[in-house]
Amino acid sequence: MLFSENLEKLIQSFNRFPGIGRKTAQRLAWYLVAQDKNFALNLAETIKTTVESFKTCSQCNMLSESDPCPFCISPDRSDSYLCVVENSSDIQILEGMNEFKGRYFVLGHLLSPLDGYGPEQINTAMLLERIENLHPSEVILALKPSAEGEATIHYLWELLKDKGISITRLSTGIPFGGDLEYSNLNTLANAWKRRYTVQ
Amino acid sequence: MLFSENLEKLIQSFNRFPGIGRKTAQRLAWYLVAQDKNFALNLAETIKTTVESFKTCSQCNMLSESDPCPFCISPDRSDSYLCVVENSSDIQILEGMNEFKGRYFVLGHLLSPLDGYGPEQINTAMLLERIENLHPSEVILALKPSAEGEATIHYLWELLKDKGISITRLSTGIPFGGDLEYSNLNTLANAWKRRYTVQ
Ligand SMILES: [Zn+2]
Ligand SMILES: [Zn+2]
Repeated sequence: MLFSENLEKLIQSFNRFPGIGRKTAQRLAWYLVAQDKNFALNLAETIKTTVESFKTCSQCNMLSESDPCPFCISPDRSDSYLCVVENSSDIQILEGMNEFKGRYFVLGHLLSPLDGYGPEQINTAMLLERIENLHPSEVILALKPSAEGEATIHYLWELLKDKGISITRLSTGIPFGGDLEYSNLNTLANAWKRRYTVQ
Repeated sequence: MLFSENLEKLIQSFNRFPGIGRKTAQRLAWYLVAQDKNFALNLAETIKTTVESFKTCSQCNMLSESDPCPFCISPDRSDSYLCVVENSSDIQILEGMNEFKGRYFVLGHLLSPLDGYGPEQINTAMLLERIENLHPSEVILALKPSAEGEATIHYLWELLKDKGISITRLSTGIPFGGDLEYSNLNTLANAWKRRYTVQ
């Protein structure tokens, strides 16, 4: 028995979010229906206002309510360090460290030629222009160590290696709190290869 | 640096959903901002339409777009079996079994006197009226085996035990695919006590 076409539509919308399976989507949809209506109506309004106010920063390609974005115009951040990320949301995660005070660049996608994401789709030209303007001494490729991430890191390294800039990437290995037993073999083999002296 | 007040509001709204932590809320909010705007605007519209169309069924207390709900008016379902659940969403989960063809009743909350949920708040009078009208031969208390669930099961059993109705509850024990090692002691002790002959 179909509960309600509207509810089913709502469940399917939540199901489209990354990492939200059918069961969680059901839970979210029913929560909205069961809560006081104002919460749900406010959420609907917030979604509308937010997505309508966001655009892409013409300098760093980040999603932001202003162009240039706060990170590109801030006088408190250094042009010497440029951190390249896959998505705008990665910036919020990295900012959580409260460690990095340089500039950002958002690729928008990792290199994945079979899915139609070649060098143009990951905004290579815009990145080169950004580097041209900022003259950073270090470009940090803060991309995830997946097959696509590795391909992108390699591609960008080839592109940038002769420009006299230090090209770095995040350390890979066993995560803190991670268990050897539950690490996959790639992670383990990589951590073994990258082992370092205890001091 | 605050990214955007709107985005922060959106993150905090998602964070209010059960089981959605701050990190997942961030992921959901950014996904909405990064997708094509139509998806987000449609979601906002679906939320509005859905919550505005849902009300409570006056017979079973379920959230539904019609009163009586489809389960209460369906001629294909038997009055002989009444399944009591905590929330409307439990009905969708149980319907997934495609096994039960009786009626439902939604308590809305488990008994939890310290949080202000006494017999009146869990709609005891409405349940008694429902039983009066349906004359079921079996009432299935499909409540979770938590402290509050057990208290509610016990309370409802006391209330109904002298009415000549069979009062049942769902089996408790080790879940399929569950590991002895990862079962908590209550689950294990209960499964031990309820062990049954293999045949
Ligand atoms: Zn920017
Ligand atoms: Zn009903």
